[in-house]
Amino acid sequence: MAEVDTARFLADLHELRKIGEFKTGVHRPTYTPQDMESRRWLMDRMADVGLEPSIDGIGNVIGRHQGEGPRLLVGSHIETQNEAGWLDGALGVMAGLALARAGLPVDVVAFADEEAHFGSFLGSRSLIGKVDEAELEAAKHFQTGQPLREALNDAGLAGIPRARLDPPRYKGFFELHIEQGTQLEKAGLRSGVVTGIAGVAIWRITCIGNQDHTGGTTMAERKDAAVAAMRVLAMIDERFPMVAGPRSVWTCARIVLEPNSPHVIPGKAELTFQFRDVDEGLMDRMSETLLSIVREVDRRDRCGITVEQVSRSAAALSTPAMRSALEGAATKHANGQWQPMPSGAIHDAQHMARVMPMAMLFTPSIGGISHHWSEDTKEEDLVLAIRILADAAESYLNS
Amino acid sequence: MAEVDTARFLADLHELRKIGEFKTGVHRPTYTPQDMESRRWLMDRMADVGLEPSIDGIGNVIGRHQGEGPRLLVGSHIETQNEAGWLDGALGVMAGLALARAGLPVDVVAFADEEAHFGSFLGSRSLIGKVDEAELEAAKHFQTGQPLREALNDAGLAGIPRARLDPPRYKGFFELHIEQGTQLEKAGLRSGVVTGIAGVAIWRITCIGNQDHTGGTTMAERKDAAVAAMRVLAMIDERFPMVAGPRSVWTCARIVLEPNSPHVIPGKAELTFQFRDVDEGLMDRMSETLLSIVREVDRRDRCGITVEQVSRSAAALSTPAMRSALEGAATKHANGQWQPMPSGAIHDAQHMARVMPMAMLFTPSIGGISHHWSEDTKEEDLVLAIRILADAAESYLNS
Repeated sequence: MAEVDTARFLADLHELRKIGEFKTGVHRPTYTPQDMESRRWLMDRMADVGLEPSIDGIGNVIGRHQGEGPRLLVGSHIETQNEAGWLDGALGVMAGLALARAGLPVDVVAFADEEAHFGSFLGSRSLIGKVDEAELEAAKHFQTGQPLREALNDAGLAGIPRARLDPPRYKGFFELHIEQGTQLEKAGLRSGVVTGIAGVAIWRITCIGNQDHTGGTTMAERKDAAVAAMRVLAMIDERFPMVAGPRSVWTCARIVLEPNSPHVIPGKAELTFQFRDVDEGLMDRMSETLLSIVREVDRRDRCGITVEQVSRSAAALSTPAMRSALEGAATKHANGQWQPMPSGAIHDAQHMARVMPMAMLFTPSIGGISHHWSEDTKEEDLVLAIRILADAAESYLNS
Repeated sequence: MAEVDTARFLADLHELRKIGEFKTGVHRPTYTPQDMESRRWLMDRMADVGLEPSIDGIGNVIGRHQGEGPRLLVGSHIETQNEAGWLDGALGVMAGLALARAGLPVDVVAFADEEAHFGSFLGSRSLIGKVDEAELEAAKHFQTGQPLREALNDAGLAGIPRARLDPPRYKGFFELHIEQGTQLEKAGLRSGVVTGIAGVAIWRITCIGNQDHTGGTTMAERKDAAVAAMRVLAMIDERFPMVAGPRSVWTCARIVLEPNSPHVIPGKAELTFQFRDVDEGLMDRMSETLLSIVREVDRRDRCGITVEQVSRSAAALSTPAMRSALEGAATKHANGQWQPMPSGAIHDAQHMARVMPMAMLFTPSIGGISHHWSEDTKEEDLVLAIRILADAAESYLNS
C-alpha cells in the first residue's frame, strides 16, 4: 500500500505558493519570470523524488519515472490567471509529485498555458500533436498582443524542441483539481469524482434590423434587432429546459447592440451563446433545437436572424475503470462525503482523454471562488484528496 | 392674402447651405465659427426684411417685428449635427423669414443648440426661463468636454445677457420642420400637420445576479442577470401592445451586461428603455404597466430587478385653432396629399408650448434620412410647405 507523505504534500504547495505570491494567492502568468521560476523549482522537486525532469519548447515540464511500466501520467498546470489562487492547477501537479514520492510509477506533468494567456490549451494540445507551427506563429497575448514567439524567446525557451507524449507509455492520466464551483460545498460534501468533462458548443447569433430614430419610426415600420435577439433568447429560455439534460448548462453571456445608443433603434444585435454537457447526444439535440429556434424566430420576425457555430469541443467521459478506482478510494476514505459529478469547465484532462484513459478528482472550493487571489480549500480536504488519488492510482495500476 | 416669395425662400435656404458646406449637407455645430457666421448672416437677413435683429448670451437670434400686434413667433434652429443635413432646423427659420418678408406680423427666432452639443434645448428653455446659471456652469460639450462657458466666450457671447420671451406678445408659435422619418413618403403624401409632440419617458432597468463560470454553475444555482433582463423585455414585448396607443412607440435601445464576456455568467444587466406618446393618459398607463412588469419579473426571478425613471418630458399637443388653420391651408393647397400625424421626435416647439399656443408642420424627408449630410426634401414639397404655413399664419392671425 503506497503511503503518501501528506505533510510534505502540503509543504510543497505552500512553498510553490511563495513564487509570485500575491496577498493570499499568486500571480504567475504564463512565461513571466515568476512562471519560469516556478517551472525551474518544479524540475528540482522532480529530481528530488527521482524523476528525470525536462522542459520543452512551449514550457511543458515533465518528470519521467525511471523504472519499468506500467506507468501513470499525473499532473495539471502551474501558471495562473492574473492575481489568482494558489491551488488552481498547482494542486494537480503537487499531487503527481506526492504520488511519485510515495513510490508509485508516475510521470508528473505541468502543462503550459492552461490559463489561456496566449492560446487554448497550448501545452496539452502540443503534447498530443494538435498544435502546428502556424498556430504558434499567429498566437498573441490576449491582453498585450505580445507574440507568443517573443514571449517564448524572453522565457529562454526558443530553440528547444516541443515534446510529444508517447501514449503507450501510460496506463492513464489522473488530474486532481479544485472544483471552482459550489456544488460540493452546497451539498456538504468533501470530494467529487468527475464523470466526464462537458463538451462546449459556442454559437454566434446575428440579428440584422434597421437603425432608426426611436421617436420617428412607428412600431409597424421598425426592424428592431434587439427585439429579435430578445425573442430568440426568450424561446431558448422556454424550450431548452425540455431538451437539455439534468446537468446541461446554457448561457448567453455576451450581447452587443449597434449602436447601443439610447435614442437609436438597434440595427444589429450579436449574441454569443453556448451550451455544455458531457453527453454528446444531448449536445446534438441542443444544437438542433437552437437551429430550429433561430429558423422559427427568423420566420416570424421582420429582422434577418442567422446563427453559426463558432466552436465545439468534444465531451470527454472519464474512463470507467479509472473512475471506479477513484470511487472505491473515495468510499474507503470518505464514505457518504463524496459524489460523482460532471466538470462544466474544461481541463487539460480533456485533451489527454484523446490519447489515453483519463479520470479526474475534484476537491471543494470555499465559496466557489476561483480565478481570484482569495481562492482556497480546507487543508483536511486537500489531505483527503491526495489519499483518495494515491489509493485509486495504486488500485488502478494493479487492476 | 399674404403672397410668399417662394423663389426667394429657396434662395435663402441655398445661401445658408453654403455656410459650413459639407458634401451636399452642412457642418455647423453649436458655437463653432461656421455656426456663428450663420447667426450673423441670419441677423443681416432679418434686418433686410425689416425685423430688428438681436443675439442673446446663449446664442438665440431673434428678429423682432416693428409694427403693432397681434404677432406670431416663427422659427426653429440653424446649428446642425456634425456633417448633417441642410434643412434640419434651417427650414423653419427661413420659413419665418419668408413670412416676415411677405408682410406678416412675425418675430423670427433661431433657438441655440437644439442639436444638443452642450445640453438639452438650452436656447428655447433659456428663453422661457427654464435654464439657471448652475446648469450653464455645469454644461460641457458631449464629445470634447469643453465647458459651455468657454465655448460661449470663444464665440464672443460672454457678457451678453440671456433674453426672456414675453409670451403675451405672441398669438402663437409655428415651427416648420422636416419629418425625419418615412411616414409621409410611405403614404405617398406631401405634408403632415402635427397633432402634438410626443412626451418621452426614459427608464433605467437594473438586474443584479451573480457573476459565475458558465461551465461550473448549474442552471438551478445560477442568477443570470441577462436572463432576467430578457424576461423583462419579453414581457414588455407581450404586454405593451395591449396598453399602448396606436401611435405609441417603445424601445430598449441600450443593453449593458457586466462583464459581457463569453464565459462569465452576467452579474449585472442594465437596460435603457423609453416610450413616447402625445397622450399623457397613455404615457401614465405605460408607466404603470412597466412598473408592474418589473415587479412581476422580480417576484418570479432569482435576480433582483429594479426600475427608475431617468426623465420624463411632457407631451405637447398642438393648439386646436392653430392646427385647424394648418389643416385648412393644407386642404386648400394639397387636398388628399397631407395627413395629421404626431411628432415622435422632440422639437423647440415643445418648449414654446409651455408658454404660448403652438403648432407644427412637417414636410417629407427623402428616404427618412436625417442627421446625415445626404438628408434632403423635394423642392416642390418645400414650396408647398411655405405656402401652407403662410396661409395658416394669416388665417390664424385673423381668427
